[in-house]
Amino acid sequence: MTDSFTISDMAKAARAASRKLAKCSTNQKNTMLRKMADLVEAQADRIRAENRRDIEYAHTKGLSAAMIDRLTVSGATILSMAAGLREVAMLPDPVSEITRVWNRPNGLQICKMRIPLGVIAIIYESRPNVTMDAAGLCLKAGNAAILRGGSEALHSNRVLADIIRQALSETGLPLEAAQVIPVRDRSAVTDLLQLEEFIDLVIPRGGEGLIRFVVENSRIPVLKHYKGVCHVFVDDTADSDMALSICMNAKVQRPGVCNAMETLLVHQSMATSFLPLVAESMQKAGVELRGCDVSCRMLPGMIPATEADWPTEYNDLILSVKVVSGMDEAITHIETYGSSHTDAIVTRDYERARRFVREVDSSVVLVNASTRFNDGNQLGLGAEIGISTTKLHAFGPMGLEELTATKFVVMGDGQIRF
Amino acid sequence: MTDSFTISDMAKAARAASRKLAKCSTNQKNTMLRKMADLVEAQADRIRAENRRDIEYAHTKGLSAAMIDRLTVSGATILSMAAGLREVAMLPDPVSEITRVWNRPNGLQICKMRIPLGVIAIIYESRPNVTMDAAGLCLKAGNAAILRGGSEALHSNRVLADIIRQALSETGLPLEAAQVIPVRDRSAVTDLLQLEEFIDLVIPRGGEGLIRFVVENSRIPVLKHYKGVCHVFVDDTADSDMALSICMNAKVQRPGVCNAMETLLVHQSMATSFLPLVAESMQKAGVELRGCDVSCRMLPGMIPATEADWPTEYNDLILSVKVVSGMDEAITHIETYGSSHTDAIVTRDYERARRFVREVDSSVVLVNASTRFNDGNQLGLGAEIGISTTKLHAFGPMGLEELTATKFVVMGDGQIRF
Repeated sequence: MTDSFTISDMAKAARAASRKLAKCSTNQKNTMLRKMADLVEAQADRIRAENRRDIEYAHTKGLSAAMIDRLTVSGATILSMAAGLREVAMLPDPVSEITRVWNRPNGLQICKMRIPLGVIAIIYESRPNVTMDAAGLCLKAGNAAILRGGSEALHSNRVLADIIRQALSETGLPLEAAQVIPVRDRSAVTDLLQLEEFIDLVIPRGGEGLIRFVVENSRIPVLKHYKGVCHVFVDDTADSDMALSICMNAKVQRPGVCNAMETLLVHQSMATSFLPLVAESMQKAGVELRGCDVSCRMLPGMIPATEADWPTEYNDLILSVKVVSGMDEAITHIETYGSSHTDAIVTRDYERARRFVREVDSSVVLVNASTRFNDGNQLGLGAEIGISTTKLHAFGPMGLEELTATKFVVMGDGQIRF
Repeated sequence: MTDSFTISDMAKAARAASRKLAKCSTNQKNTMLRKMADLVEAQADRIRAENRRDIEYAHTKGLSAAMIDRLTVSGATILSMAAGLREVAMLPDPVSEITRVWNRPNGLQICKMRIPLGVIAIIYESRPNVTMDAAGLCLKAGNAAILRGGSEALHSNRVLADIIRQALSETGLPLEAAQVIPVRDRSAVTDLLQLEEFIDLVIPRGGEGLIRFVVENSRIPVLKHYKGVCHVFVDDTADSDMALSICMNAKVQRPGVCNAMETLLVHQSMATSFLPLVAESMQKAGVELRGCDVSCRMLPGMIPATEADWPTEYNDLILSVKVVSGMDEAITHIETYGSSHTDAIVTRDYERARRFVREVDSSVVLVNASTRFNDGNQLGLGAEIGISTTKLHAFGPMGLEELTATKFVVMGDGQIRF
């Protein structure tokens, strides 16, 4: 299974399976997802035994405690995998949805109908639960999935692949509709990324290194998420309590994730009153502050920020702080250093709220709410397969709809073109 | 202007211009489009003089008569360029359109808002009118455009670029919002295709060679249209007159285009009555017929089709004909040899119509209508910038909406995440 020949066979089989899957009913797909959930729970011991083999391997390879933590399938991981699959089963099926209908003067009726994309390859790191989450979402949207987890999770992913196959088989769906690449070899990924004939989309999930590797080596379109350098701009009309609450939530509720705030922009007229307030709370919460010249003058304890701070995603309890002269400077700063991910304004000014919404070019733009809401579940899309920071096909959190395309359906009575 | 440095400067300037353009009002953009149209008419003599230089160059290079015909800007071309621009000015502006709004239990209001994609590069062959069509559509959707026409149209495209710049300047829009690459050098294209930092999308328009070159050399996402191998399946319940009229229209109304029928599939129970009928009309219209074994036995004059015929886009008065045992074989044939472009069924059977619509995986699927309707104008989208045969981002004819993305806008009252 290590040569490109078999990877290509795998992809070809996925293509064939995707054609069958596209024709399955919603009921069939939901039954299969619930079966997957049942099997995950029923075979928890087997999954955890295989997972222990991965953990031992990780120890011998000297992987970090954080990596091993992410790799570990606990009892809670089992329950959350199963719950996730049941939740996806309950989401509306996007396939065959008619998103628009209109009529033409010659009597033709035109519809746009959602269809599956086809075959989706997911390339990810470490966490074995991604295998189930990603397979569940792809299958529900009628797509075949080719899954390539981190090499350190190989045994865990193999047993999960087995469970998926069993669920597919017991519900009469094609076995090749979800396949896990069963080898550690990185060349398997490089080979996979050439198969544009069989694979419609690649979604890499992981660090910037993995994502750049996929983008640079792929002939297949890639939906990618480079990084989240998220800003909160506190305008001088902001309610101070609201601004404080939003800033604290955006920074400390879960600092290691992509939608956490990395840079706080404060209107100069608000700085004298607001900066000491937010600095005190942040420092109490263990956040290191790195300030621009003006904020350092106001709060002498602050570490001076360098040019390298502004475009940095800390993913940690560190916050850069900049005092700006107003909307223009705030928007220019976000344009210059931001990552088109998530940016928020706190304001009571109608015009500025409108302008921020229109002009900030990010996948999620918020007024008076925490950046932490950039998440498929929080926005009401259901589970998400990732967040796209490029605009082609999808921009922002990607739920089931983003795993589909639309085709035109034309209903006529013999119309011809003149 | 031949080194990659200047191509990169051009792209960087386009990025900056796209940010300004994204903030322009609909009125500003429409005024500019009408100004472009006025200037095209007012400077017709200058355009045609420069076009004659291209034609002379084409003659010295020994280009074919067909190529020279496509290169030529006639009085009618001038009028149609101007009319096209005025038509785009009248289309609704997709930018800032709210495509959906919903509320969350915590009181957040979520909207999806259309935004421009950013910078779009169009790489095309021969016809200088594409310069105006493509620039008009890109600008209306708030995108900056980098245009690279065929090297044989360089003088024509330079003068058109000048007119666009004049229109932008006279309406206060950024001059770099639409730029024509002013050199013949092909390396300019290769350089351009590396600039993923500044360019969001590449649309190649032309022959398969050009499209493959772009796909293979681009780091930027490509919206592509390989070929149109379009089918009409005449079911045995079809109305014979309707089937004949649709087949003739699909094949002969304009045989050189991508939405013309290339293969006719006839249900075996219909073949004895329908094949002689359609063969007679086709032969009268000068269409060469290449048939499967069964159809050759029925109509002895027919040329036997080989395996190479089925996936071929003739773009000519040639039609391959196959008798099929029913829906299953018809759909399998389309799956095997089709190009996901345009496929039609002629039927009076409700279930078969439903099944064809669901199962045929093409950008436009028609029931009882000619394949020639796969066209932005015919489907009611307004002018189109091309037809995509891959599913990512857009599938089928691409109008103004397909030149946009959507972002999430979240309106809150201080909500934080728990």
